[in-house]
Amino acid sequence: MFRPEIKVVDCTVRDGGLMNKWQFDDDFVRHVYQALCEANVDYMEIGYLSSEQAFDRSHYGPWRFCAEEDLQRIIGKGEKKIKLSAMADIGRIEYEDIPPKSESSLDMVRVACYVHQVDTAIALAHHCLDKGYEATINLMAVSTVGLRDLNEALDDLSKSRVPIIYLVDSFGAFYSEDIDMLAAKYQERLPNKTIGIHCHNNQQLAFANTIAGIIAGINYLDGTLYGIGRGAGNCPLELLLSFLKNPKFNVRPLVECIEQEIFPWEKKIDWGYSIPYMVTGVLNQHPRSAMAVMESDKKEEVTAFFDQVACAAETV
Amino acid sequence: MFRPEIKVVDCTVRDGGLMNKWQFDDDFVRHVYQALCEANVDYMEIGYLSSEQAFDRSHYGPWRFCAEEDLQRIIGKGEKKIKLSAMADIGRIEYEDIPPKSESSLDMVRVACYVHQVDTAIALAHHCLDKGYEATINLMAVSTVGLRDLNEALDDLSKSRVPIIYLVDSFGAFYSEDIDMLAAKYQERLPNKTIGIHCHNNQQLAFANTIAGIIAGINYLDGTLYGIGRGAGNCPLELLLSFLKNPKFNVRPLVECIEQEIFPWEKKIDWGYSIPYMVTGVLNQHPRSAMAVMESDKKEEVTAFFDQVACAAETV
Repeated sequence: MFRPEIKVVDCTVRDGGLMNKWQFDDDFVRHVYQALCEANVDYMEIGYLSSEQAFDRSHYGPWRFCAEEDLQRIIGKGEKKIKLSAMADIGRIEYEDIPPKSESSLDMVRVACYVHQVDTAIALAHHCLDKGYEATINLMAVSTVGLRDLNEALDDLSKSRVPIIYLVDSFGAFYSEDIDMLAAKYQERLPNKTIGIHCHNNQQLAFANTIAGIIAGINYLDGTLYGIGRGAGNCPLELLLSFLKNPKFNVRPLVECIEQEIFPWEKKIDWGYSIPYMVTGVLNQHPRSAMAVMESDKKEEVTAFFDQVACAAETV
Repeated sequence: MFRPEIKVVDCTVRDGGLMNKWQFDDDFVRHVYQALCEANVDYMEIGYLSSEQAFDRSHYGPWRFCAEEDLQRIIGKGEKKIKLSAMADIGRIEYEDIPPKSESSLDMVRVACYVHQVDTAIALAHHCLDKGYEATINLMAVSTVGLRDLNEALDDLSKSRVPIIYLVDSFGAFYSEDIDMLAAKYQERLPNKTIGIHCHNNQQLAFANTIAGIIAGINYLDGTLYGIGRGAGNCPLELLLSFLKNPKFNVRPLVECIEQEIFPWEKKIDWGYSIPYMVTGVLNQHPRSAMAVMESDKKEEVTAFFDQVACAAETV
């Protein structure tokens, strides 16, 4: 039996774009959009909502900004059959740069924040709610947060009007037992909120931890096509839809889109399970040091990282 | 706290060899052996025990046979610091071709069988026990076995002298809830036996399902370096050792061996998560059709499989 409250959020373009500065062409984004519509996925997170001053368009593709004219090119003139989401990072978007919902094709804004930014994130999410959007707060990197800080942040969130709060395993460090415990804590401290989950695959546990979240009662589920995403990547959307029992979902359009659009990118950017990402996951660290070495072709940098890996591996 | 009863069995050469007909050279096997010794892994499954008549040595490497002279070349003259295991397939080994333990460097024989072969497997495992070896029975493909047949096989195994029985997810079809249920069933029907687990990674759940097995009380755990193995591969040993708390384990020698020995093979053979293996996993089918297409360079075969995949995906 499926749980009708479950909503699936695809982050292919948003999280995948972290690996190529959102240099996906319109055909790619349009194909992903069409496939997600045909698969009946609930939300497509198409990128970040950023002020034009925050990033240089000559270095970053359109999905770093999610301007309305860019969204329009993807949607075209047909009926919009999927809700669109954009993520907002604290400090990279000004309130006045967020259009009212009536002037935007976006339906939801997800505010990503670290624990010390919770008050700023609540204010931004409230602003988005007041402008007519759905809103979530995605509390990142909780695997490194002390218990008192986490409790305080959850209590602040519980007093907010933000209806959906995400449990985020930014570093791919959690085991299913961590998800069990944190899901119970989020539900206890956030009565009347919907909980979401966003996992990374450093230890090949993104899908398994998402299932653990489902079993624990989490209802907003993130995935990406073939797991494309920062570092070790995300929960593969095709696996998630195969697991969920709701007959509205279709896996076939996702498989076709993966073959045509994702496989070519697999040759150009390095996401997915690898030893460097495994080590940062096991050590509960940001994957930036691993990403640097994966992108480097300088032998000495690679050697230096693997020395670090070897030392780190000794401690695990 | 670690559970001292837990034993880790590396299947790199045995299961990885299914992808290259065991064409690993001695340097490869020796390096894996040394790394496993330094990592303090409990068992190395170095190949299959087969009669020389069953396979042609001009097509299959030495680890399809595990002859004593081949084992000696790997062990060398030093102290043997790890137990060696070989797998035996029903019908591919004659009793008289199994040397007595006193003439062999092998410590354990694991008998792989399908449910209808359980009686033959018990006889072979008893024969190995009587010759002085440790023995297990690995009941394969239980994800396709009916409840009455499974219960009957488990009851037969419970009456045997074989002390270790494996739960095997041959098709990578199980979710953690399946492992929970089957582990409980195996423990109930096999009192006084030790239970083992061997998982495949078609749905990126091999490591997660192994953890589910540990939590459920399973004590013999299979893995391979970087997950090398048939089709989508196995539970990555480096992840498993990082998870286990026993301070005797060292991950570092495994990481070094992966860099030097496994990465080069990654360019030559296709194991690991992929859409064809994902589909056979979700559909609970043998990966042979997926393997055929992965090895094929004929465009029409690939297209035909993907048509089949697309149809299959519609049903999941």
